[in-house]
Amino acid sequence: MNTIGHIFRLTTFGESHGTAIGGVIDGCPSQLELDFDFIDSELLRRKTAQSSTASQRKETDRIEWLSGLLDGVTLGTPIAFMVRNEDCKPEDYKALKDVYRPSHADFTYEQKYGIRDWRGGGRASARTTLPIVVAGAIAKQILKEKGAQIIAGVIEMGDAEQARRDGDTVGGVVECCIKGVPSGLGEPMFGKFSAELAHAMFSLPAVKGFEVGDGFALAKMKGSEANDTFINRDEGRETRDGGRGTEVIGITTATNHSGGIQGGITNGNDVVFRVAFKPIPSIAKPQQTVNRAGETCQIAIEGRHDVCVLPRAVVLVEALAAMVTLDEMLLSV
Amino acid sequence: MNTIGHIFRLTTFGESHGTAIGGVIDGCPSQLELDFDFIDSELLRRKTAQSSTASQRKETDRIEWLSGLLDGVTLGTPIAFMVRNEDCKPEDYKALKDVYRPSHADFTYEQKYGIRDWRGGGRASARTTLPIVVAGAIAKQILKEKGAQIIAGVIEMGDAEQARRDGDTVGGVVECCIKGVPSGLGEPMFGKFSAELAHAMFSLPAVKGFEVGDGFALAKMKGSEANDTFINRDEGRETRDGGRGTEVIGITTATNHSGGIQGGITNGNDVVFRVAFKPIPSIAKPQQTVNRAGETCQIAIEGRHDVCVLPRAVVLVEALAAMVTLDEMLLSV
Amino acid sequence: MNTIGHIFRLTTFGESHGTAIGGVIDGCPSQLELDFDFIDSELLRRKTAQSSTASQRKETDRIEWLSGLLDGVTLGTPIAFMVRNEDCKPEDYKALKDVYRPSHADFTYEQKYGIRDWRGGGRASARTTLPIVVAGAIAKQILKEKGAQIIAGVIEMGDAEQARRDGDTVGGVVECCIKGVPSGLGEPMFGKFSAELAHAMFSLPAVKGFEVGDGFALAKMKGSEANDTFINRDEGRETRDGGRGTEVIGITTATNHSGGIQGGITNGNDVVFRVAFKPIPSIAKPQQTVNRAGETCQIAIEGRHDVCVLPRAVVLVEALAAMVTLDEMLLSV
Amino acid sequence: MNTIGHIFRLTTFGESHGTAIGGVIDGCPSQLELDFDFIDSELLRRKTAQSSTASQRKETDRIEWLSGLLDGVTLGTPIAFMVRNEDCKPEDYKALKDVYRPSHADFTYEQKYGIRDWRGGGRASARTTLPIVVAGAIAKQILKEKGAQIIAGVIEMGDAEQARRDGDTVGGVVECCIKGVPSGLGEPMFGKFSAELAHAMFSLPAVKGFEVGDGFALAKMKGSEANDTFINRDEGRETRDGGRGTEVIGITTATNHSGGIQGGITNGNDVVFRVAFKPIPSIAKPQQTVNRAGETCQIAIEGRHDVCVLPRAVVLVEALAAMVTLDEMLLSV
Repeated sequence: MNTIGHIFRLTTFGESHGTAIGGVIDGCPSQLELDFDFIDSELLRRKTAQSSTASQRKETDRIEWLSGLLDGVTLGTPIAFMVRNEDCKPEDYKALKDVYRPSHADFTYEQKYGIRDWRGGGRASARTTLPIVVAGAIAKQILKEKGAQIIAGVIEMGDAEQARRDGDTVGGVVECCIKGVPSGLGEPMFGKFSAELAHAMFSLPAVKGFEVGDGFALAKMKGSEANDTFINRDEGRETRDGGRGTEVIGITTATNHSGGIQGGITNGNDVVFRVAFKPIPSIAKPQQTVNRAGETCQIAIEGRHDVCVLPRAVVLVEALAAMVTLDEMLLSV
Repeated sequence: MNTIGHIFRLTTFGESHGTAIGGVIDGCPSQLELDFDFIDSELLRRKTAQSSTASQRKETDRIEWLSGLLDGVTLGTPIAFMVRNEDCKPEDYKALKDVYRPSHADFTYEQKYGIRDWRGGGRASARTTLPIVVAGAIAKQILKEKGAQIIAGVIEMGDAEQARRDGDTVGGVVECCIKGVPSGLGEPMFGKFSAELAHAMFSLPAVKGFEVGDGFALAKMKGSEANDTFINRDEGRETRDGGRGTEVIGITTATNHSGGIQGGITNGNDVVFRVAFKPIPSIAKPQQTVNRAGETCQIAIEGRHDVCVLPRAVVLVEALAAMVTLDEMLLSV
Repeated sequence: MNTIGHIFRLTTFGESHGTAIGGVIDGCPSQLELDFDFIDSELLRRKTAQSSTASQRKETDRIEWLSGLLDGVTLGTPIAFMVRNEDCKPEDYKALKDVYRPSHADFTYEQKYGIRDWRGGGRASARTTLPIVVAGAIAKQILKEKGAQIIAGVIEMGDAEQARRDGDTVGGVVECCIKGVPSGLGEPMFGKFSAELAHAMFSLPAVKGFEVGDGFALAKMKGSEANDTFINRDEGRETRDGGRGTEVIGITTATNHSGGIQGGITNGNDVVFRVAFKPIPSIAKPQQTVNRAGETCQIAIEGRHDVCVLPRAVVLVEALAAMVTLDEMLLSV
Repeated sequence: MNTIGHIFRLTTFGESHGTAIGGVIDGCPSQLELDFDFIDSELLRRKTAQSSTASQRKETDRIEWLSGLLDGVTLGTPIAFMVRNEDCKPEDYKALKDVYRPSHADFTYEQKYGIRDWRGGGRASARTTLPIVVAGAIAKQILKEKGAQIIAGVIEMGDAEQARRDGDTVGGVVECCIKGVPSGLGEPMFGKFSAELAHAMFSLPAVKGFEVGDGFALAKMKGSEANDTFINRDEGRETRDGGRGTEVIGITTATNHSGGIQGGITNGNDVVFRVAFKPIPSIAKPQQTVNRAGETCQIAIEGRHDVCVLPRAVVLVEALAAMVTLDEMLLSV
């Protein structure tokens, strides 16, 4: 299952040191003039993010568009794109070929497939999230036209510069806010808006926690504290005649402990959620582990590695949030 | 989307005060003699759980099996079942017909569908989770034969008895452990085992947070603290000849910060996760809200309501964990 | 996989002589006042159809609605319904318990599941198509409001009355026409409108052939004979300003060899297709076969059986055509 | 929906004169050493087929493998591949930019998407089936190891050489036989093996009919003629102890009117089906049509076009049959 989404669907492919990384977007609305500059700027956010805390691999990330476009306008057919893996030095990783790096996917991939691409983490590399940024940028462009906006930021992070000196890594938390999302998105039982977001966010490497609104803090509250009182911003003012008879506008919640989602469905207030990222498991410090023969051994992971996934993660969290929001909008039409 | 699962799939139906609540299980292995006593005991766990903290609605919860069985043995065809809603007093809810209860799904359902079943919360009622317990019990029975076991418990909860006196409610956290889960379950990109669990857990009412392993605490750790060192319990001992050549057995992790999942795939260690539940929004205390006409009003929710969803939630968390685990096993064969 | 559809989805359950036959419709638009009389009349078409050519089993087919409705109006939540199997005489079938009836599903079900419900054909009975009539009737009601209409009829059938005297059965062909279907339905590659129809029709028991437009006859034509010339019924008249700029209306095809589908997508002309049904395999004439022990034996199938599936099939073909058309409409919004 | 399959899934992309045509295969078993020579030979079958009846476009069809492989061995991760569109002369098609070619997808694509790629038919071009040949070749390789084999051939075709001289085109019928397919494949209700095959075959351009076994001819037969008598090739011989107790081997049908499928499930006999292709709509003869402005006009389609799709179609029918068979095998494990 390398596909996400119901109507707006992204299928991704590629290993860190294979020929190329890419994706196929199916279900993108037609007649959209793609904003390539914006897509590039989103990719740049991912790159720039790396400056201080991330690895020095030179990723030019030049997208080649393979299909689905006529003069830059979407045709409604699948939009395929790819980025070649150019600056590959697989020999850097040969030492790791037969060793299971702690808290990496080396062991689990091998358990699942009986084989793994040891070159740079293969499919489990953070590099494989690049297509998400591309699809997310397109989703954002469409959402913008519909009046919705996604903004994320790092709200918690360990001391990266100290960690780099120590040959260590740090984790952190990203908070994301979806503004202008219409009410009524999400399905009542197994496709709740919160469930779709959770599923998407857990697709990112290193994610270990997800919460909506006040999240885990709600577990410590009383109902009288946690409830979001409804108010009518326009009380006494006019109502709007929607297709379903007279419709009252202006109803929202005074507080937003719920994070914009009630009963799994958006209530029109900002959707707010947080995502917890563990520290990157590739550390320079020596660690004990076992090799494929089951023998205990020591490793110190050299090469180019991020100290913290957080700066890169912001644009990824936004991208997936945009994809989920657009997908739910297209589903609910 | 009232369906969950890929191979072992549950479709649920029913509103709190409609004719019946039920489900259809598609993809259950054939030739399984259902353990009806166990299914009943799981339903009883849900009921007993209610004793002190939950509502007094008399739910006999007698399952009627509609299809998919011959003399109690599964045929491989869809297993449909239902429980009639007998003790219904919809008039209790008439006062709430035109009022949006704070942090309930009244408003969002109406925004989505233009109509809502105001009788007892309708589809958004916790009662609609009953079919999950049934499907979960069947999944557990199959898992048990395969050597896997699911155990959950409440690890954090507010003071329920005090809350009841105050006309208030409390939230809490459930922790769940899946033991005996084979390594190699879960998909590498968008169907990670953790993502499937997250999606399932967020299908439960009142869930606002989910974390795997050390979860949000990992965000504060360094890589050297968070990494799970691999060890070989059987080092120097024999290896086993699997289908794929000589296979080393006995490899596991010394710690389990990862909660049994690395790169989205199970590593054979216990899968451990936590689910945060907000307090039930139905409180007896008077609250301010607005009605369908957009007018500010006061409500005090009477009727039979749980003080805390936690005791009921344990068996639900287990049930969904069992369903996800079985589904992934059937997918990975 | 007992589910059909993408947005408007039907999951069916039930065996011929189990407790009940039924279905769950997910994705039905909300706020629709169901026309129960029409649904009953569609079920009656199925019954009346039986008079001369069909079995005498007394099927009262009284639907019990289990969920998804409030005062007969759809809530947007799953609509579950069932019909109890009352007039069951499983003992009629005991003689067939260990024998594989020729061209029946006895053998294949046992190969697939290792077990089969021998009572009246179990899941493979034509009775299990009843839920399709219900879902189809609801789809037709919605389509009617959208200006589309489905009409099918038997265009070829063997001599049923002679066959009954001979203890034999006959097959035939149903032709179906979907009028008022908008252009632009269907997906370009793997979800062509024709492919969706073919998939749906092959879900009916005894279906062995399907063709669209001139179908197999097109294989014998030349391009110059088979092509449908475009014409403009309103040439020189006004154009309509659609959302996408000036839109020319009135374009259609002078002939309809294509059956309303070109490149897998509807062109606005009538969608026309035909479905071939084999004769019912349950014949009174003695036949040679083998039993579960692999021994050659003779059977003569007694009991109540149709002589021809065709009269029943008409409403089923219409029902599935309606479901597919509605589903594609909901997908294309 | 540009994806086909449940476990073994192909997503295709590309337009005739875009940058590239390609696909992503998800769910391919790992540790398979791809037989690239065989894949090339299958692509060559498609090319050679063209010699007398097909267009002269120089298609080198050199596949570039983008992901999912390590030294030619499958990793279990998505296998992406593409073929660049090199010999493109879009100017050939400019004359057709604003004209709807009769029985082509020009009009329907424009109705669906409000835009179309007029260069060589865009996504509706037969060239877009190339990825199916690639995925089919891989499926065949796996099936071969499992003892199954797919063989198709043209059993009916118009006079191609005469048609070429007349500036016309012809249609025909392909018959396909799947040998060595295990019994028990296919789902009982909406995922019948026949339904999956029908759906797949109708994904091919120009397909207008599909029948299994004796197909439409069965509609004219009596039950006593159409039924396939069961026999035991090994009667009196040994039985085999399967997992489910003693299993009788050797049971098959004396005739194969059913085409190897009964009740939608394979019975172990050869699966036999036929696919009807209409003549290619691109004919050199002048035709009347309308343009985008709704004005009647004449066209004579120049350029490189096949006279008959049949020779190319054989390998495509085989490829999709292989993909469906493998997918059902992987589902039924």
